[in-house]
Order: sequence, then C-alpha cells, then structure tokens
Amino acid sequence: MNNTQRSTQTRTAILDEATRCFASEGYDATGVAEICEKAGVSKGAFYYHFDSKETVFLELIDSWLKNLEVTLQSVVSQSETVPTGLLDMAGRLQPVIEHNQEILGLFLELWSHASRNEKVRSATIAPYRRYQEIFAGLVRRGIAEGTLGEVDPIITGQLLLSLSSGLFLQASMDPTGADWGKVLHNSIDLILKGIERKDEK
Amino acid sequence: MNNTQRSTQTRTAILDEATRCFASEGYDATGVAEICEKAGVSKGAFYYHFDSKETVFLELIDSWLKNLEVTLQSVVSQSETVPTGLLDMAGRLQPVIEHNQEILGLFLELWSHASRNEKVRSATIAPYRRYQEIFAGLVRRGIAEGTLGEVDPIITGQLLLSLSSGLFLQASMDPTGADWGKVLHNSIDLILKGIERKDEK
Repeated sequence: MNNTQRSTQTRTAILDEATRCFASEGYDATGVAEICEKAGVSKGAFYYHFDSKETVFLELIDSWLKNLEVTLQSVVSQSETVPTGLLDMAGRLQPVIEHNQEILGLFLELWSHASRNEKVRSATIAPYRRYQEIFAGLVRRGIAEGTLGEVDPIITGQLLLSLSSGLFLQASMDPTGADWGKVLHNSIDLILKGIERKDEK
Repeated sequence: MNNTQRSTQTRTAILDEATRCFASEGYDATGVAEICEKAGVSKGAFYYHFDSKETVFLELIDSWLKNLEVTLQSVVSQSETVPTGLLDMAGRLQPVIEHNQEILGLFLELWSHASRNEKVRSATIAPYRRYQEIFAGLVRRGIAEGTLGEVDPIITGQLLLSLSSGLFLQASMDPTGADWGKVLHNSIDLILKGIERKDEK
C-alpha cells in the first residue's frame, strides 16, 4: 500500500467511525479523541486530514446530501413517467429507511444542529432547497407529459419532501413502530391517486 | 405571594428558561447552572423541584406532547366532518409552525435524543403512537360518514403524521424557506383531494 492509499484509508476510517459516534451518542457528546481511538488513528493523523470535529461533520453531511441528490436525479432522469419515477424513488429510499440506523442517526444530528449552527444550517439548506426544486421539476414534468393533473408544482414538491423527511424522522426514532418502507411506498401511492390526471383513468 | 405561589413561579421559570436554552443551544450543551442563572433561582431551588436536567427535559416533552394531543382530540371531536376537521388541525398548527421557534427547537432536541436515550424514547413513542391512532380514527370516521373513500386508515394516518412531522422539521431548520403554514394547509388540501369520496363531487 502506498502513501496515497494509506492516506485515503485513514480518511475513510475517520469518517466511518465519526458517523457511528455521531449517530449513536450525538455530535456534542463525541470527542476527537474517541473518533481517533475507534478509527485506530493518531490525533496527528486526524488533524492532518481535518481541522476539527465540525469539519468532519460538515463533510459527512455534504457527501450524504450530495449522494441523495445524485440518486434522486438519476431516478428522475431514468423514469419513463413521473408516477413510476416517484414510486422508484420510494423504492430506493426503502432500504435506507429500514436498515440504515447510522444514516438515520446522522440525519437527526444534522437537523438538530442545523437549527442553531450557522455553518451546518448553510450546508443543509442549500441542498435541501435543491431537493425542493427536483421534486417541483418532477411535478411540472408530470403535468407536461399528461400523467399529473393541474396541481401546484411547488406545493406538491414541498409536500413530497415533507412526507419523506417526516418518514425519515419517525423511522429513526421508532424503527420498529411501523413497516416504514411500506408506509413510504403506500403514501406516495396515495398522493399519486390525488394528483394524477383524472380523465386518463 | 404565598409559598405555593412562589414555588409554582420558580418551577415555571425553570421550565421556561430550560425550554429556551435547550432550543437555542441544545440539550447537551445546556447546564443546570445556566438554567438557574437565567431563571434567577438557586441550585437548591432547582433540585427541590427537579432531580436533574433530564427530568426537566422529560417534563417539557411530556407536557408539550400532551397539549398537542388535547388540541388534536378537541379539533377531532368538534369538527362537523373529517375534511373540515383536518383543515382545522392545519389551522391550529399554523401559528406553531410559523412563529414558535422555541417549540420547534425543542422538537428537534426531542427527536435527536429519542434516537439514543431510552427514557426520552419511551416518553416520545407512547404519545406519538397515540397520534397515529387519532389520525387513523379520524380517517375511519371519514369513511363511515361518507366523506372519505375506501382508503387504508392506518397508512393514511401515518401519511398525515409524517407530513406534519416533516413540516415541523423543515420549519425549524429553515423558517424563512417557505410559507410553512400555507404549505401545511395546501398539502392537507391536496391529500384530501386524493382521499375524498369521489362520487360525492
């Protein structure tokens, strides 16, 4: 293994362990020392890669939100019609909502800190507003292609985003409280029944 | 002012200041000393009323979730039909979502801690599952009274609850990102269009 590989491995180990710590104990209760210990790296190595615990958190948020955006965009561009695209999206989010307790824990930390840390807020709001745009664009496309009725694209987009966020929230707090993947799928289905163009049926 | 009045006043001051601190700085970053200083009470007085910071937090959550439940129940029992009841609910939540940054901040702390603190989780899950029941019951009533079509009451209830939770989440993170009260009202309206009994129109 050369230096670049070793460096990448160290960086990945720090990010992985930080995700675990933030998700299980919370951002505030996690220290750099603990992340280093669990990742098996020295403090020197940590500070070679990151300025602070906050930098690690911001990088995790950034990469997670960007991944989600890429996923949404690819589902949107590959779907034949908007209704099938929305159901595909639900299918893609299903494994995250059902099995990925770490991502869900990180998601809660993100929201909780976005409300009072300006850097976290900016890192969150920008991609989040892009999600609103993606959903609104999807609804506009549905109206244009004739699968959706004349609904308000912005409100409908916000509705879809609120629903997804709320489901993530409930799934992270009460993983066994419902079959969240199924609730997501059926909810999208129910909303579709309301917004689909009626005269096509 | 007699002793009982003074005691109630102290208790209220502690709860009010704790709400503010938890909402603005987070639960982990808030100390008992800070709550006491802001509330203008001694540590002795604090510990006369509460065992710990956690007790204060649990009491705040409990009273907040119970208030919400009472509000939901009263809207449900007073509404003439289920669709008007749901729109009334949206109306009641509107001022909270638009102006009550403290309650929203506390809400985020609640969710964030519910995912990793067993006591907070239990204090949250029980009322939350009752909300699911209230919403499901409302949908059942709508089907029985003939205003709603043959939708699945449990899924529809979870959809309504997820939507509300997601809106609270977005409003707390990005208060100026949208007219959240309007989004809430219009989203409920949109869902109603999907679940209302069709042959009545």
